[in-house]
Amino acid sequence: MANNRQFLYEDVAQSVTCMINDGTLSPGDKAPSLRMLGKQLNVSVATIMQAYEELEKNGLLKARPQSGFYVQASAPLPDSAPRWRSTQAAARKVQIGAHMNEVLASARVPGVLNLAIANPATELLPVKALNRSLKRVCSARATEALSYAPIEGMPELRSSIARRSIHLEHPVNPDSVLITTGATEALSLCLRAVAKAGDIIAVESPAYFGVLQMIESLGMLALEIDTDPVDGLRPDALETVVEREQIAAVVSVGTFNNPTGSVVPRAAREQIVTLLAEHNIPLIEDDIYGELYLGQQKPLPYKAFDKTGQVMTCSGFSKTIAPGYRVGWIVADRYLPELKDLKLISSSSTPTLTQMTMADFLADGRYDRHLTRLRRACREQLQVTRRAVQTHFPVGTRISEPTGGYVLWIQLPRGMDANQLYRDAIAENISITPGALFSSTGKFRNFLRLCAGQPFSDEIARGIQRLGQLAERQRTLKNPIQ
Amino acid sequence: MANNRQFLYEDVAQSVTCMINDGTLSPGDKAPSLRMLGKQLNVSVATIMQAYEELEKNGLLKARPQSGFYVQASAPLPDSAPRWRSTQAAARKVQIGAHMNEVLASARVPGVLNLAIANPATELLPVKALNRSLKRVCSARATEALSYAPIEGMPELRSSIARRSIHLEHPVNPDSVLITTGATEALSLCLRAVAKAGDIIAVESPAYFGVLQMIESLGMLALEIDTDPVDGLRPDALETVVEREQIAAVVSVGTFNNPTGSVVPRAAREQIVTLLAEHNIPLIEDDIYGELYLGQQKPLPYKAFDKTGQVMTCSGFSKTIAPGYRVGWIVADRYLPELKDLKLISSSSTPTLTQMTMADFLADGRYDRHLTRLRRACREQLQVTRRAVQTHFPVGTRISEPTGGYVLWIQLPRGMDANQLYRDAIAENISITPGALFSSTGKFRNFLRLCAGQPFSDEIARGIQRLGQLAERQRTLKNPIQ
Repeated sequence: MANNRQFLYEDVAQSVTCMINDGTLSPGDKAPSLRMLGKQLNVSVATIMQAYEELEKNGLLKARPQSGFYVQASAPLPDSAPRWRSTQAAARKVQIGAHMNEVLASARVPGVLNLAIANPATELLPVKALNRSLKRVCSARATEALSYAPIEGMPELRSSIARRSIHLEHPVNPDSVLITTGATEALSLCLRAVAKAGDIIAVESPAYFGVLQMIESLGMLALEIDTDPVDGLRPDALETVVEREQIAAVVSVGTFNNPTGSVVPRAAREQIVTLLAEHNIPLIEDDIYGELYLGQQKPLPYKAFDKTGQVMTCSGFSKTIAPGYRVGWIVADRYLPELKDLKLISSSSTPTLTQMTMADFLADGRYDRHLTRLRRACREQLQVTRRAVQTHFPVGTRISEPTGGYVLWIQLPRGMDANQLYRDAIAENISITPGALFSSTGKFRNFLRLCAGQPFSDEIARGIQRLGQLAERQRTLKNPIQ
Repeated sequence: MANNRQFLYEDVAQSVTCMINDGTLSPGDKAPSLRMLGKQLNVSVATIMQAYEELEKNGLLKARPQSGFYVQASAPLPDSAPRWRSTQAAARKVQIGAHMNEVLASARVPGVLNLAIANPATELLPVKALNRSLKRVCSARATEALSYAPIEGMPELRSSIARRSIHLEHPVNPDSVLITTGATEALSLCLRAVAKAGDIIAVESPAYFGVLQMIESLGMLALEIDTDPVDGLRPDALETVVEREQIAAVVSVGTFNNPTGSVVPRAAREQIVTLLAEHNIPLIEDDIYGELYLGQQKPLPYKAFDKTGQVMTCSGFSKTIAPGYRVGWIVADRYLPELKDLKLISSSSTPTLTQMTMADFLADGRYDRHLTRLRRACREQLQVTRRAVQTHFPVGTRISEPTGGYVLWIQLPRGMDANQLYRDAIAENISITPGALFSSTGKFRNFLRLCAGQPFSDEIARGIQRLGQLAERQRTLKNPIQ
């Protein structure tokens, strides 16, 4: 993929960290040579050296005399990462919808500081470039833009999406792409294509509340699988579950998990896909944050390891280009006929105008240039927001260090109540997402999600400071002795 | 509603016919006086006189000396209207999906004459005016157009839609309007909001195949209710059914039924709404063709008689302005919370850009002026297409005479097979919709639907002539003696 910007040593360090986190580099592996990586990224050997020294300081690499840098045998977990008990819950009905609606509605009230909804800030969106694409479509193909698109989507958009996987060993075939009205419709169609009311859906714990609410609304049962704070869905935990229970489908956000930011390492992904193929269980992959990697490249999706057509990958442009356009897609094989039938009766074809505009925008390098800018903004926003939380939240607060996306998963000290913090905060016009929304088990009561999709501002700084004060007040009231 | 064009005597005759058909004028009623109607329509008394004499010739009005014109005690049914046996089928699974997909796909193949899909021709769409609205939105509110709309839709669009009912006794409240991704999503959400797999849905017989396929795909059962060729859903037939069966919902296209063109008269509508309220059964009204009336005004929807909030009215702009924009809506009361929840998990908010553009287009009189032109085109197309069918199809063919919309329902002589005609026609690149798609009972095998959404052309004329020849050939092969 095109990447024209100049790399700084922090970028290089971040890239290598990602390669270690996603398993491209394993413990004991030799890191790329200074000269090779310098050439590849078009930066000086000195910059690479500076990055490697930084990584050595952080304990991720170790220099061996006369040989180069090697990945540490056990790269230490960041001390500050949130942790949770690994308890396996039973499949259960979900009841988060009412609470979710309340939280989302309160975040949308004008004047409320939105740290709850995972949106990119409008100032980060390519408004002018998209308008140019729109004008081109309206001049050249106005009539076509008013007509029904094919059910599976506009051919040029399906090709553009497929082309973005051209570097993979098995690139996506345009015929495997079904355009949807946003990633929400994509996920919803996938669930409905392979499961019905009463069926058990295995999800990560914590899980994206949107998927939990789909499961609730469709009358299915959620079975929450134990996840790792950094490595996400654990193959061993999943194996235990699929051998014990009749699972209709698994939903996983393997890349930049929402809310934890975890990335399932390459080897684990392969294990998961193989395991599910053996058990003939479809895997619904939510890849909505995939393009927002802060490292050097996008971690491989589950779909890259799919030999049986079992994996359906859902994504869209809502987190990167245009939330309001509602253009998403599914990459699927075996279940494509069912998905198309369901799409036809659910919303018929996706709007033509927005599909054509998106295809025009994707046609040259504009999307990649935009993504490069957006990733840099996300990185900065995540860093500054993290630092603000570390500064203002009570001692003992843990916070994720995601390598992509723009959400932070925060663990308050034990015994604290993030629902209470949500209520205290919204009373002061600050919205957060309480952790309870990410599970139907009652876990994560002392967790919350903060979104760093907006450029950091004084208002956000004040908001986070105030959140910290509210949390501190709650802590003091609970433990008056301290 | 604005209506600036000059009325011809045929227009006046058509208007009065519609008033009789939809029950605004009952048998025995005095027709509006020449002077009053002339003033109202801004035409001369002579024109009205000419129209009334025409209607007298057709047996719809009768002049009484010194008194005026009166609606005939029993206005005769047009002799040529299709007829079908009134047999009440049991609730059953639907299995039309595969056949439907085949028919729709074949109609979309380039080079095929499309008489199958109920589309307005692109040359009848307000391409330039919509492009102007789009440009206005992009200049003034570009950023907003990229952002998520509220789940219930953009406020200005909901208000515009509500305002179109301002002349009704109980106009629609903007808060009752939920914007959807086309009328397909509207219908689908309504079904899912009030029924689940295994539930019985009462539909008209024949019924719009899209609804039948929804019922099939959602695992519900269809119970087809006997309908009248001209008056549509019969309250007595419906009453028999709801007293015998546990019905989860009724779906009805009360105005310009697809495929029959029938209009449920005002009194029958009131009876149906009251009956369903007594039995606490929701009524899903499909009003997608409502604005395409050829008479003087839009027949009142079921919703106008709804005192209990039981009626959900679905409509959209796909048949009148922009099929590809996919902007539809539901007007609902009691079920609005369930509908909003389902909308949220099904596709989240409807695309913002198309909503804003549509709201801009609706803001002044452009929509009404466009509708006036479109209705005139529809009337002409229906008339010419009807005449062509009468000329070329086998003796004994019956054909509907709709007072709105743009589809014709054609009954071939008994024993003929419209599925065979479909296959013969598609082999010659002419697409029609066989009647079997409009029922899950196996009825309507000698029926077909033709769409007159395209301006009549030599190609269409040749296509209909060829259809007639193919039908004639089939008839001769079946009855070689004749």
